[in-house]
Amino acid sequence: MGGVDFLADERNKAEFDVNEMKIVWAGSRHVFELSDRISRLVASDPAFGKDNRPMLSRKELFKNTLRKTAHAWKRINELRLSEEEASKLRFYVDEPAFTDLHWGMFVPAIKGQGTDEQHQKWLPLAYKMQIIGCYAQTELGHGSNVQGLETTATFDPQTDEFVVHSPTLTSSKWWPGGLGKVSTHAVVYARLITDGKDHGVHGFIVQLRSLDDHSPLPGIIVGDIGMKFGNGGYNTMDNGVLRFDHVRIPRNQMLMRVSQVTREGKYMQSNVPRQLVYGTMVYVRQVIVSDASNALSRAVCIATRYSCVRRQFGSQNGGAETQVIDYKTQQNRLFPLLASAYAFRFVGEWLKWLYTDVTQRLQANDFSTLPEAHACTAGLKSLTTSATADGIEECRKLCGGHGYLCSSGLPELFAVYVPACTYEGDNTVLLLQVARFLMKTVSQLGSGKKPVGTISYMEQVEHLMKCRCEVQIAEDWLKPAVILEAFEARATRMSVACAQNLSKFTNTEEGFSELSADLAEAAVAHCQLIVVSKFIEKLRQEIPGKGVKQVLGMLCNIYALHILHKNLGDFVSTGCITPKQASLANEQLRSLYSQVRPNAVALVDSFNYTDHFLGSVLGRYDGNVYPNLYEEAWKDPLNDSVVPDGYHEYIRPILKQQLRTARL
Amino acid sequence: MGGVDFLADERNKAEFDVNEMKIVWAGSRHVFELSDRISRLVASDPAFGKDNRPMLSRKELFKNTLRKTAHAWKRINELRLSEEEASKLRFYVDEPAFTDLHWGMFVPAIKGQGTDEQHQKWLPLAYKMQIIGCYAQTELGHGSNVQGLETTATFDPQTDEFVVHSPTLTSSKWWPGGLGKVSTHAVVYARLITDGKDHGVHGFIVQLRSLDDHSPLPGIIVGDIGMKFGNGGYNTMDNGVLRFDHVRIPRNQMLMRVSQVTREGKYMQSNVPRQLVYGTMVYVRQVIVSDASNALSRAVCIATRYSCVRRQFGSQNGGAETQVIDYKTQQNRLFPLLASAYAFRFVGEWLKWLYTDVTQRLQANDFSTLPEAHACTAGLKSLTTSATADGIEECRKLCGGHGYLCSSGLPELFAVYVPACTYEGDNTVLLLQVARFLMKTVSQLGSGKKPVGTISYMEQVEHLMKCRCEVQIAEDWLKPAVILEAFEARATRMSVACAQNLSKFTNTEEGFSELSADLAEAAVAHCQLIVVSKFIEKLRQEIPGKGVKQVLGMLCNIYALHILHKNLGDFVSTGCITPKQASLANEQLRSLYSQVRPNAVALVDSFNYTDHFLGSVLGRYDGNVYPNLYEEAWKDPLNDSVVPDGYHEYIRPILKQQLRTARL
Repeated sequence: MGGVDFLADERNKAEFDVNEMKIVWAGSRHVFELSDRISRLVASDPAFGKDNRPMLSRKELFKNTLRKTAHAWKRINELRLSEEEASKLRFYVDEPAFTDLHWGMFVPAIKGQGTDEQHQKWLPLAYKMQIIGCYAQTELGHGSNVQGLETTATFDPQTDEFVVHSPTLTSSKWWPGGLGKVSTHAVVYARLITDGKDHGVHGFIVQLRSLDDHSPLPGIIVGDIGMKFGNGGYNTMDNGVLRFDHVRIPRNQMLMRVSQVTREGKYMQSNVPRQLVYGTMVYVRQVIVSDASNALSRAVCIATRYSCVRRQFGSQNGGAETQVIDYKTQQNRLFPLLASAYAFRFVGEWLKWLYTDVTQRLQANDFSTLPEAHACTAGLKSLTTSATADGIEECRKLCGGHGYLCSSGLPELFAVYVPACTYEGDNTVLLLQVARFLMKTVSQLGSGKKPVGTISYMEQVEHLMKCRCEVQIAEDWLKPAVILEAFEARATRMSVACAQNLSKFTNTEEGFSELSADLAEAAVAHCQLIVVSKFIEKLRQEIPGKGVKQVLGMLCNIYALHILHKNLGDFVSTGCITPKQASLANEQLRSLYSQVRPNAVALVDSFNYTDHFLGSVLGRYDGNVYPNLYEEAWKDPLNDSVVPDGYHEYIRPILKQQLRTARL
Repeated sequence: MGGVDFLADERNKAEFDVNEMKIVWAGSRHVFELSDRISRLVASDPAFGKDNRPMLSRKELFKNTLRKTAHAWKRINELRLSEEEASKLRFYVDEPAFTDLHWGMFVPAIKGQGTDEQHQKWLPLAYKMQIIGCYAQTELGHGSNVQGLETTATFDPQTDEFVVHSPTLTSSKWWPGGLGKVSTHAVVYARLITDGKDHGVHGFIVQLRSLDDHSPLPGIIVGDIGMKFGNGGYNTMDNGVLRFDHVRIPRNQMLMRVSQVTREGKYMQSNVPRQLVYGTMVYVRQVIVSDASNALSRAVCIATRYSCVRRQFGSQNGGAETQVIDYKTQQNRLFPLLASAYAFRFVGEWLKWLYTDVTQRLQANDFSTLPEAHACTAGLKSLTTSATADGIEECRKLCGGHGYLCSSGLPELFAVYVPACTYEGDNTVLLLQVARFLMKTVSQLGSGKKPVGTISYMEQVEHLMKCRCEVQIAEDWLKPAVILEAFEARATRMSVACAQNLSKFTNTEEGFSELSADLAEAAVAHCQLIVVSKFIEKLRQEIPGKGVKQVLGMLCNIYALHILHKNLGDFVSTGCITPKQASLANEQLRSLYSQVRPNAVALVDSFNYTDHFLGSVLGRYDGNVYPNLYEEAWKDPLNDSVVPDGYHEYIRPILKQQLRTARL
């Protein structure tokens, strides 16, 4: 990052201590230092370069990822990195690869669902990567509805084996990452059948490929499902298709922690509570929410820096044009996304706490908070991933035409991010799960069952149904209590209205289906409240560093007031606020934009991203955009020759009017 | 389209005459027949196949486009196609290419801005493609602000030439399509300088490449700007970079219809009205609005058909799962987009009329309707392209995980479409232009100057500021007059509120800048009203065919009521409707979804798209999705071998614990 800093002026404007903010963003000094060290390690290693990614063909791209993955594993071993460090290293290598599934799904599935004996047999192999595994759940015809999976695992008592089979085309496993070309093993989800009886979907460890020559084992058809969105994007990953033709595995390869099949073929539940799976779900979704803040912050960092570099209009007397970040329309689109990145960061941090809390309770056989934790993580996964996907694309548009170039980094960031809206629970399906929980909570109000955790505000249902917002001047909107009450009242009133409408249906399921669009909106209102309230909670903690808490306070208010403006219909039509108060909120929002403006670049510097990780000419730390954009262009393979390949066959015959006789 | 039709049941449900709807969609029987004929011609010609597009490297992809373009030109000549037919053919070939700019920008620029002599010299060459031209306006540092362009064209009276020069890096021409590798000529926009005086930006015809060997002429540096968003997408186009080092062109290559430079170097305006350029702008934007309906309808067609094929959840007693199109959440996202596709179609059709009207008035020196026409086309361009870009991505998500595969056609459709939000006027910048016009209109109310055209509703400002919506039951929302009044009242009240807030500023420009986010929202309200009102106007015409008008009526109401719901804050906080009425609108919307549901597939069949044009396994006419998705996967180059390239170097050493000694 040597040389001239074109953004130095911007950095000098900041009113807070950037180094302290970096620690707030990272979550702790320990994580900051570790991230900083590992990100520099990756950035300085030419083997991890990613400049040429968009230009590679699928095969070259994939092979290149194999190379980087092997190199990463080599470095992890050479440097004896801890698990935490290794995981950061993979994060900063910034390329989807089979190892994501091996470490993120295969190993945890065995840990969570396997018995002690299974742990002893399989985990050491997986830890050393003597086997490489993936997670084979979704099928060609079955995604969200896990209970609808068709693959079967039929117990054969004669040989003490399961016969794994794909009975239909739509039962082909489809999508699992790492499956297509690399994995030697998979945790396969299949309907367990013993003695003609279907016991529903269970997990099985199945070897797919020979450990000698990597060829698929007999009865196994496996391959890649083809190109996906984006130039690079997820095309570095071998998402796969897998079909079984009566493949036999030993009985002890069923993951048997929660339920077992005995030698005699008897199906039994163990005394391990089934709710344990929810613990894993909370963990996975917490990771997804953290990823959302990572992805959104990258996009915001690029758009913010380039909005300071880029100038359009407003030149007076031949002077420089106006920096586009000074336009209110730009601020009105960009700053709420900057605020969202921080908001998602803090709610993600809180989810880490929730996971610990849930785990401890589960170990103590306390399942009371599970429904609330499940609903809350489902909703936050949905809310943050949808907002992030839209936010990345908005950041791309905020960079004008140049955002459309791969060298901006934004197209690939979008393409690689959007699947998060679909995987681990489709976002709409998840909102309906939240809505079910909300309806249940409303129906139990006054029954003596106290709502807990993020839904505990509903205890005040009587107050929240009739309270009136007390805002009289724009500054009143800066009070956390005012914001919280408005959001709580809105969420409560929307849930109660849905419950009332539901009660008009004789068949509740029919009503739920008919009103599902309204129910999804009530769920969003609840989730937005959670994000706002966790941001406010964060600000109640001690936060050291000059000006750090102040600027975070601005972001919190921007997040809340922008959500309020975007969903004004909810707030006004439920009588939570008046049109006049809405207009004061808007006024306050504009004033907050002006306050954040001088801090904008420092706020994205606080993410502490290297230029390697950002992968964007527009987002360069030094702001030296145009010469580098120009240089970047010439690297395109089309510029290998001045006269393009195809000129003689296809262009010249047109110009020379010789097309009639040309062979095309 | 032979074989089994898995969507036959869906087609049988339709309550209207699909063949008549096809004509309504096309605009006329003539256009329908021509489109139908040409689209089949393209679809049946293997040379126009596009299956392998995502897998090609940039160079292969580009060369392949050159081949198709030459083949298309050959066919156009062999079949002696009319201009209309040729343009349809290029449309159905469905691949951005240099010819888009040659025919769409270069030729029209010469026609519109050239003198008769220039027409005589250049147009015959261009018509026969003896020269190939592009449109070189935007620069590396200058997009939206045309007046900020830096390239200079300095008149040299000694030689009677202009010296075209790029004085800075940021003055490099950047983005023009067809420039990078193909064009022999360009219309270059540069600051005209005579005798040291800057006369602002003018157009010049500049030859770039030798007609003998295609090499760039002396003083010209030209190349491709590199990869853009998407696998195929716009990467078939050679968007280019261009720098001039004192390149000399004869004086008669300045486009001199509106202003001239004499032999002596004197700068003169001709008596041709400068407003003529606005005519071209109306034309270009009308094309963009039509393109929006084309792109959105493609995405909606794919999502609708696949939503009928795809089943998730809801299986009872082991029967088939529910078609996802039967979920209200799916309908609530999909049907408004279906309605938008039709809405944009009709407003696009109306813009064609507007263009004719404006042209006739210009010829009669009547400039009175120009500001309104300019504002209205700017706003509609912004509204329809933003909604279409978002809508395509929404359709992709509506297809679940499989929408992320290139074989769904949706990733490429998105990637190729999104630039429409930025080119020909950034969408936010355009909304602010509309807002300026609205503020001017409001300020002139009562001055005797009558608002005309799409803004004429403001004549009723007194009524619209105080009227109250009369809806009492859900069905009242089906009345066009009720909808129109609500939308007119909302647009008026938002504009008037902005004007009132503006008047509080002593410096209007400062106020405009401060309030620009609100102003943009007022502009959106105005533009949504235009779309709604043109849909309603369409329905007032005679529309033959059983049930055609009825189902279009449903779509019109869905469009309007969905917009109302999405922007509820506007309607309720300005007192245009009450919360109770809003809730009735929602109720009516749900009922409309049920009414449209049986017609859904027939409504997308009415677009009359061939499977070739759709380019989507999920959107296949016959609904036979899964076997084809499965087949498609195996075509990926990664599946050329069972054991992937890179196994021996990068996977085996991991598995065999030999990484330490491996050479990576």
